Amino acid sequence: MYLRLLERCEANGQLTISSDDLAKQGGTTSAQVRKDLSFFGSFGKRGLGYSVPELAAEVREILGLRRRWRVSIVGAGKIGAALAQYRGFGQRGFDIVAVYDSSPEKIGLQWGELTVRDVNALDGDLTADAPDIVVLAIPSENAQALVDRVVAAGIHAILSFVPAQLHAPADVSIKTVNMAMELEGLSYWLSNRD
Amino acid sequence: MYLRLLERCEANGQLTISSDDLAKQGGTTSAQVRKDLSFFGSFGKRGLGYSVPELAAEVREILGLRRRWRVSIVGAGKIGAALAQYRGFGQRGFDIVAVYDSSPEKIGLQWGELTVRDVNALDGDLTADAPDIVVLAIPSENAQALVDRVVAAGIHAILSFVPAQLHAPADVSIKTVNMAMELEGLSYWLSNRD
Repeated sequence: MYLRLLERCEANGQLTISSDDLAKQGGTTSAQVRKDLSFFGSFGKRGLGYSVPELAAEVREILGLRRRWRVSIVGAGKIGAALAQYRGFGQRGFDIVAVYDSSPEKIGLQWGELTVRDVNALDGDLTADAPDIVVLAIPSENAQALVDRVVAAGIHAILSFVPAQLHAPADVSIKTVNMAMELEGLSYWLSNRD
Repeated sequence: MYLRLLERCEANGQLTISSDDLAKQGGTTSAQVRKDLSFFGSFGKRGLGYSVPELAAEVREILGLRRRWRVSIVGAGKIGAALAQYRGFGQRGFDIVAVYDSSPEKIGLQWGELTVRDVNALDGDLTADAPDIVVLAIPSENAQALVDRVVAAGIHAILSFVPAQLHAPADVSIKTVNMAMELEGLSYWLSNRD
């Protein structure tokens, strides 16, 4: 979130920003901003605020965005297609290097520079030329078995669009995007806002 | 998350669950589970745990899932298509009632029972037959202007897939799904896990 705010300042040519301004734009308090950033080191000068380019560079460094990351997608359905063709990933340093599916109608499809591969090739590919991150855009059935295969191949980061709870060892991070859950957050809001 | 865990218990025919078990499956502590649930009322009996069907019904009530919600989608690109065709929404009480786009190639397309409508019809539709929730699956450009139109029409809940910070009055909830930000969470994890 801080990086998004700082990038907007960069785009506007703004050179410094106060913790007050960061707080206001981020919907938080300046005390929280100072606490968040102090967790990673000492930034900013009292009374002068933060240098936008310096803080942006620090946050990029913290987020691991000074290098490129290789991402493989399992599942060539609608979500897989949306992800594979989203330009924002490349701009932020995430390169989609492979897409897999189990359906004979999908295998062999050409998506830009990518060819949809047979998911049976996944384990071999993960061993021979491992990506950094695997994205799961598949149905719930067999999703846990797929996580187990990915973990067994030594992958430590998974982004899941699977609408089910998936389990992995503590040294593997699974982030879940669950769109039904987001809608439920909104129905909760609508039901309780009076 | 609790609802997901309770639904799994229901599917397995399990009738009661302890806060310890809920905590273990949810990756949290039993003290946190008791605190979370006590926020909404008094559930469960000391030593006996929670009744799975009763707690699931309570959580559904809390989340506003005892009625159906009407959802309109703006943007008939890949993400809009994935959302419109995702069966999980209907199963959870969210009915997609309309899809809009500005592109002449998209307008008029038939998606199951939905016909993609001209986004110029949006304001009239929102007034005549308002949905409960509007989903934005459009590029960043003009997204804020669209939020303003949706808010002006009296909508209080927005789910955004727009990769930019959007602003709305305090009585409107915007939930954002930002897939690049999820990937950045993973690159942070990979960069800092040693």
